[in-house]
Amino acid sequence: MITLTSDFGLKDSYVAEMKGVIMSINPYATIIDITHEINKFDIKMGAFILTSATNYFPKGSIHVAVVDPGVGTDRRGLLVQTKKSFFVGPDNGILSLASQNQGIEHIYQIENPKFIRTNVSSTFHGRDVFASVAAHLDKGVEPKFFGPEISNLINPEFTKTVKKNDGIIGEVLHIDNFGNIITNIKIQELFEIEKVKVRISNQQFELVLARTYGQVKTQHPLALIGSHNFLEIAVNQGNAAEKYNIKIDDEVEVTPV
Amino acid sequence: MITLTSDFGLKDSYVAEMKGVIMSINPYATIIDITHEINKFDIKMGAFILTSATNYFPKGSIHVAVVDPGVGTDRRGLLVQTKKSFFVGPDNGILSLASQNQGIEHIYQIENPKFIRTNVSSTFHGRDVFASVAAHLDKGVEPKFFGPEISNLINPEFTKTVKKNDGIIGEVLHIDNFGNIITNIKIQELFEIEKVKVRISNQQFELVLARTYGQVKTQHPLALIGSHNFLEIAVNQGNAAEKYNIKIDDEVEVTPV
Amino acid sequence: MITLTSDFGLKDSYVAEMKGVIMSINPYATIIDITHEINKFDIKMGAFILTSATNYFPKGSIHVAVVDPGVGTDRRGLLVQTKKSFFVGPDNGILSLASQNQGIEHIYQIENPKFIRTNVSSTFHGRDVFASVAAHLDKGVEPKFFGPEISNLINPEFTKTVKKNDGIIGEVLHIDNFGNIITNIKIQELFEIEKVKVRISNQQFELVLARTYGQVKTQHPLALIGSHNFLEIAVNQGNAAEKYNIKIDDEVEVTPV
Repeated sequence: MITLTSDFGLKDSYVAEMKGVIMSINPYATIIDITHEINKFDIKMGAFILTSATNYFPKGSIHVAVVDPGVGTDRRGLLVQTKKSFFVGPDNGILSLASQNQGIEHIYQIENPKFIRTNVSSTFHGRDVFASVAAHLDKGVEPKFFGPEISNLINPEFTKTVKKNDGIIGEVLHIDNFGNIITNIKIQELFEIEKVKVRISNQQFELVLARTYGQVKTQHPLALIGSHNFLEIAVNQGNAAEKYNIKIDDEVEVTPV
Repeated sequence: MITLTSDFGLKDSYVAEMKGVIMSINPYATIIDITHEINKFDIKMGAFILTSATNYFPKGSIHVAVVDPGVGTDRRGLLVQTKKSFFVGPDNGILSLASQNQGIEHIYQIENPKFIRTNVSSTFHGRDVFASVAAHLDKGVEPKFFGPEISNLINPEFTKTVKKNDGIIGEVLHIDNFGNIITNIKIQELFEIEKVKVRISNQQFELVLARTYGQVKTQHPLALIGSHNFLEIAVNQGNAAEKYNIKIDDEVEVTPV
Repeated sequence: MITLTSDFGLKDSYVAEMKGVIMSINPYATIIDITHEINKFDIKMGAFILTSATNYFPKGSIHVAVVDPGVGTDRRGLLVQTKKSFFVGPDNGILSLASQNQGIEHIYQIENPKFIRTNVSSTFHGRDVFASVAAHLDKGVEPKFFGPEISNLINPEFTKTVKKNDGIIGEVLHIDNFGNIITNIKIQELFEIEKVKVRISNQQFELVLARTYGQVKTQHPLALIGSHNFLEIAVNQGNAAEKYNIKIDDEVEVTPV
């Protein structure tokens, strides 16, 4: 099974060209889209979504991720083999969080022209390199045949959380389609508490640490541990990010009450 | 075959996580998206789209629908078996129109932990309950093994049409991507007539009851019986809802001329 | 394999209804979306996207394309057999560029009621005619059984490029999701040069003719030969069309420096 993640959007033919290349090499491939709506050039968002989604896919899946502002420059193309699956894409940080999460076993630098399309476009390696490599891998080609093994890959700079007095300082990692504000503060850092003080950018809230949205009234704010185990600030049946004008990277401070 | 309908949008990893769960349980599943662009928390729109689409799918299909503002509260999870197929989702009205349409045979309340993911998130039953149940059902598990049979399910409140003098009063049920205004007035209620007076909110039109858009000039309005057999108000190659500023739930009155 | 291209968007049930019809006729069909985000009624954009994408699909693929403002009028429905694959859709220009590109062998006018749904909606031939025909074709029905062979099809009016003094005059063919400005000027018309003067509508640029985006600084403009071999004007990690307020059909003049 091959999954695709990119910032290509769904309006153009780019995603379909990748699928056409895969199906031309391996007509029996099963292709599943993770998303093609990563914000343009946003490697951190791509890395977060890829990590979230690939947790749930079966062993042996091949995950292609293309957010690639450096396409055609000398940045490397990678095939990463983890304990659970494979990741294919540019060496710019997009693959590292998800592959470290699963436990990296080998990293190969894609070089073998046999598994790349002839006349590679300098602006579309998603189609001419990564889709092609994924299809050949899916067809049974051994990972080591795609290029030399290398020892490291580039990491995106995710900000770490910091402890301060009684609380934790972190940041807004992602704002989802519902306007839920997902922070980088993990469940393990939270305590057996029922209420939290939350500061996001310059706003202060005192919120119930709820189990689910329906625990507060419609349109009321709450804090909860979201489906990826990060602290979320949400509004029951509303859009928290719009209501409080919150953006990605805004600072978040959480303190138990 | 498993279909998916939700209000999750395509930007996040939520839909992909559901697909990953399904493919992990049943690697041979065929998954088809109906839509993930239901307006957030809009159970009526979800019910309408689900009913429209599932009419056309083969016997035995499994339709998962998740518009779920009450996730994690005590609302029930359902598996509905109809004369033609299966519906899986929350008991909040999203499933009832489509399943009644096909003829309900059994309703099961999802309870058996064997077919649910361990550590169910309180905010994402789409992934941890409904996707998992659909995949096991698709793999051959009998419906009755998912939980006890129950006798009813919640109905969404769709407004009925009312006869008044020579005409019919109804409402705007849906506005599609093209801006076509789809009402809840059914073809059976219409007469062998060629022209209709239509009032929507405070606007009056005298319209040809056309067979297709091309029967009036470009950018001119018309009435027609749409592809779901409801009365539609449209503009040939234009956006009727924007042009006349019409919204869902606006009152519609139709009278033959 | 069946691909789908349309202007239906992803919010409604229309695309899913087409897929349901296909799967009901041929449960083993593999369906791949090219895009459903063609601008409403924009046959030229549909023809461009269809041509771009279908280049990359395997021999024998069946490509259904529905941008169909004339649905239900007397415009014909076509099945076009090319040297490489099949195209199914309305005779309004949407199929011609892609099918001529692959070399047309036969054109059939769809007429045989055996392969069309009974009670064809006058507004949705995508579902009732074209999806049905594609599924039967995919299942093995011979092309000639769908209707009589005819000798021509309608061509959309693509503007040709013109030589002027040292340069070439063309137009903006497409603006992609990234804001890259794709012109109708082909690589063969360009010279072994390093810099070009570009005029788009009333703006003048002197640009590097780059191999890839990363050759200029972030947010700087450049010219390059894009992945479809057309001249593109882009901004490295930026949105060229928004930055310079460029629209489809704007005139473009390119002169070597």
